[in-house]
Amino acid sequence: MTSVIETAPAHRRSAELDDLIQQHPHRFRVLTGDRPTGRLHLGHYFGTLHNRVRLQQHGVELVVVIADYQVLTDRDVAEHLPQHVEDLVLDYLAAGIDPQHATIFTHSAVPALNQLLLPFLSLVSVAELNRNPTVKDEITHSRQAAVSGLMFTYPAHQAADILFCKANLVPVGQDQLPHLELTRTIARRFNDRYQPLFPQPDALLSPAPLLLGTDGTKMSKSRGNAILLSATADETARQIRGAKTDSQRHITYDPHNRPEVASLLLLAGLCTGRDPQDLADEIGPNGAAALKTLVTEAVNEHLAPLRARRADLATDRAHLREVLRRGNATANEMAETTLTEVREAMATHY
Amino acid sequence: MTSVIETAPAHRRSAELDDLIQQHPHRFRVLTGDRPTGRLHLGHYFGTLHNRVRLQQHGVELVVVIADYQVLTDRDVAEHLPQHVEDLVLDYLAAGIDPQHATIFTHSAVPALNQLLLPFLSLVSVAELNRNPTVKDEITHSRQAAVSGLMFTYPAHQAADILFCKANLVPVGQDQLPHLELTRTIARRFNDRYQPLFPQPDALLSPAPLLLGTDGTKMSKSRGNAILLSATADETARQIRGAKTDSQRHITYDPHNRPEVASLLLLAGLCTGRDPQDLADEIGPNGAAALKTLVTEAVNEHLAPLRARRADLATDRAHLREVLRRGNATANEMAETTLTEVREAMATHY
Repeated sequence: MTSVIETAPAHRRSAELDDLIQQHPHRFRVLTGDRPTGRLHLGHYFGTLHNRVRLQQHGVELVVVIADYQVLTDRDVAEHLPQHVEDLVLDYLAAGIDPQHATIFTHSAVPALNQLLLPFLSLVSVAELNRNPTVKDEITHSRQAAVSGLMFTYPAHQAADILFCKANLVPVGQDQLPHLELTRTIARRFNDRYQPLFPQPDALLSPAPLLLGTDGTKMSKSRGNAILLSATADETARQIRGAKTDSQRHITYDPHNRPEVASLLLLAGLCTGRDPQDLADEIGPNGAAALKTLVTEAVNEHLAPLRARRADLATDRAHLREVLRRGNATANEMAETTLTEVREAMATHY
Repeated sequence: MTSVIETAPAHRRSAELDDLIQQHPHRFRVLTGDRPTGRLHLGHYFGTLHNRVRLQQHGVELVVVIADYQVLTDRDVAEHLPQHVEDLVLDYLAAGIDPQHATIFTHSAVPALNQLLLPFLSLVSVAELNRNPTVKDEITHSRQAAVSGLMFTYPAHQAADILFCKANLVPVGQDQLPHLELTRTIARRFNDRYQPLFPQPDALLSPAPLLLGTDGTKMSKSRGNAILLSATADETARQIRGAKTDSQRHITYDPHNRPEVASLLLLAGLCTGRDPQDLADEIGPNGAAALKTLVTEAVNEHLAPLRARRADLATDRAHLREVLRRGNATANEMAETTLTEVREAMATHY
């Protein structure tokens, strides 16, 4: 299988990039986002949300897309879009994304962004779209019988999402690198063929910790094994009490052989800022019950301020709508500016 | 090969449709248009332009798209887009399309139209796009090595072009019927899944006469065998004088066995409103020279007012830009109205 990767890898060494971000945060604009499929959980929180807030605190500008057009082909999700979108905005704000400094917008609200899909599609071949591994994966895991044209062209939409605001930094997991490579390819081809307009964005490979769900499989809302940011302390306690561990009483930190116990230790470590190994040493012979008590306290304590903010924000839906309205207005301004430049570069400005 | 046609044929019987148009012209909105690949010639004129003007004279509303995004993958064409677009507008106005009653716009100027591509792509499968015969044909005749994502998704763009203004009548040739079927399929699926918003447009099968180029092959600007609307009377005379005929002196109207001679007779017939058979009978023994004199006079006489208008219009480029500016503004209003309805129907209005 040929890779779409035609250039040098998109990611610089993380240490080098981290230094640059620390020294010159205002040089970076980050594009990040989520599909609105439901409330966010601890996997999202420690996997990406936390990192976004950290970047924002450094002074990096965030642009956050709620990719509502990416869930249209999943009918169960599409039917509850307004609720999902509101939940995402709530989770973002509660986690600390500051709408005074970040742009939160929905994909469907920005026509000039979506228009970029057309010139970008002219710069990639069907063969390149076909061999994108993430699309292959989407296709494999898709609940629908046939692959839609929307899913097939997804990497080109993602390029539009990133390039409409000229983001130069995209936090991704290792598995998403091919997507970003196609965005870089489209940017490069546009620049070569027309005018140098777009950055070739860097991937910020975040070392997302592997948090398992309470049943020991991948944490996912649809499996019912995820601890939601919006859960109550009691719900959280009940879920952790029922979490799968193993038959060994003595607690040790052994991610390879004892993944469920290790994931709980890791979670407690992430919440308390401590080393999971140290936590395991302290619990040792006290067993899984002690571990679960520790994890419950750590999670509930860590999330308490976030949950309080979330509850508070949830009472003011007009404010949430206003955050989105302003984010959409900013995204439209960015997109229209870029589209005007694109029209001039392509000589489609008559 | 499975056909994309899943419903009853898109075209009603022409006679029935013609009657309806005559009786209730204001019930119809026609979407039609061209790729801006150069100046129009007699093939375009008698094939489609003439018919558009006829519909307009009946009182049918015309929406005319200059499909500039459909030529991006042809670099030779894309580099001269502004000139091609201006030439198209000139040819339209000269031929009698009245911008007071018709909307002439460029595809790239209407973001809300282009956004419709995304929800529409979610309603068709890759398999359906793959088996569209017109796309297959485009791919075969494409000058480029690889098929672009833009070309592959062309039938969905065409659906957006037609449905953004809720056109319910599309003049097409027989070969374009599968395209229109996919537009009808997309309209039906949208209506079924969300809300009944779109008409399923009828095809108006126009009996386009088969005019050959002066070399006896299909008339096409790129082959240099086409008589341009914008040519001078002298250029036209020179081209017709050099037109290919055959070795038989006696002129007869025999499209099957004498296609070049028949095409010239047909052209003279179209220009004079007379029967090609009658013209052949009159010329008979006087041979090809007499035929060519007749054709030259007929074409130049028929086109004289059009060419005078064209020359006149060409002196006022500000007016042409204003026609396009107003057409683009109208198209944007139509598209934004439709997109608002689409957002409400899809519950992506937050």
